[in-house]
Amino acid sequence: MNRPTPHSGATRGPADHELRDQIVAAATEHFSRYGYEKTTVSDLAKAVGFSKAYIYKFFESKQAIGETICVNCMLQIEAEVRAAVDGGDRPPEKLRRMFKAIVDATLRLLFQDRKLYEIAASAASERWPATIAYEARMQALLQDIIQEGRQTGDFERKTPLDETTAAIYLVIRPYLNPLLLQHSFDYTEQAPARLSGLILRSLSP
Amino acid sequence: MNRPTPHSGATRGPADHELRDQIVAAATEHFSRYGYEKTTVSDLAKAVGFSKAYIYKFFESKQAIGETICVNCMLQIEAEVRAAVDGGDRPPEKLRRMFKAIVDATLRLLFQDRKLYEIAASAASERWPATIAYEARMQALLQDIIQEGRQTGDFERKTPLDETTAAIYLVIRPYLNPLLLQHSFDYTEQAPARLSGLILRSLSP
Repeated sequence: MNRPTPHSGATRGPADHELRDQIVAAATEHFSRYGYEKTTVSDLAKAVGFSKAYIYKFFESKQAIGETICVNCMLQIEAEVRAAVDGGDRPPEKLRRMFKAIVDATLRLLFQDRKLYEIAASAASERWPATIAYEARMQALLQDIIQEGRQTGDFERKTPLDETTAAIYLVIRPYLNPLLLQHSFDYTEQAPARLSGLILRSLSP
Repeated sequence: MNRPTPHSGATRGPADHELRDQIVAAATEHFSRYGYEKTTVSDLAKAVGFSKAYIYKFFESKQAIGETICVNCMLQIEAEVRAAVDGGDRPPEKLRRMFKAIVDATLRLLFQDRKLYEIAASAASERWPATIAYEARMQALLQDIIQEGRQTGDFERKTPLDETTAAIYLVIRPYLNPLLLQHSFDYTEQAPARLSGLILRSLSP
């Protein structure tokens, strides 16, 4: 099957990664409107105008498409969180911004604009590798902020760094994991500020 | 319908509250084995050997029975938590014990022994009055411990008491609310100690 592309006049068609991206973009649009769980690859193929065989050339299963969408979504959340952290001056402010940005970006991308909650929920409950990697990166970012705060003298240094990081991560986790976040909508307004306050008190030298 | 009771020879039958308790005990047994959502009052009546009309004499709906079971379950969790807290010497130890007992009792009663998770989940997601009252009592217990710690000098007194209580309650909530707890089984071993440590650091004078 040929689809018109900006490169269709060239001797070589669009690169594989471009075709792959087209499928992912169309699938993201489709899943976010009609849901992930109930849609089959056949439904998807029909809806987005690619043949089923063509989709299978790039993705071995629906989950493989879901994983790519999920990765893109997590990368976007992560980019927003990192931008928010970078906008903070000192480590305490960075930590506050991190918590707030996690809640805001996750709510918006999974529950409001894109409605990708269903894919993210599968990813979280089935522990897809993308989820595990995402959580590890967020924990690493958190640890960087804590370590910086120890160097600047804003944070205490008695508690082992990995213990502090793990405990604070547990406080943030209910707002980062979509399975938990869906039961905390009543708290998303107040929780980031309140919990950041508590975390910062626990970090005071 | 007459059921044999210890009082059947007396001029008056068993008191209403005893008959009510019998229905609740039988329903608890039934729901914890066969599930709450799918069972109708007719199923329940058949299984426990009371007539449907007889059950409706005491409870206006299945939810009313569910609420009573839920209240009993929460009272039992609460009794275990209070006993654990009372066994602690100073406020920091009481706080540690409170967190640990909440996790242990909730896991055991809702997910292991009694499998009453399904009722508790309905109660939590539909915000039954019993759930709201239970959460308020746990928050009050938490506040009592914090206040005691402020008096003994174990805890700081700068942060407004209600702010501290609300923030710590948010840290405990994912392990107290069954909807969140079901997604945190991987953390129930380590979370109480780690989070108690963080909370106590945040409370240090």
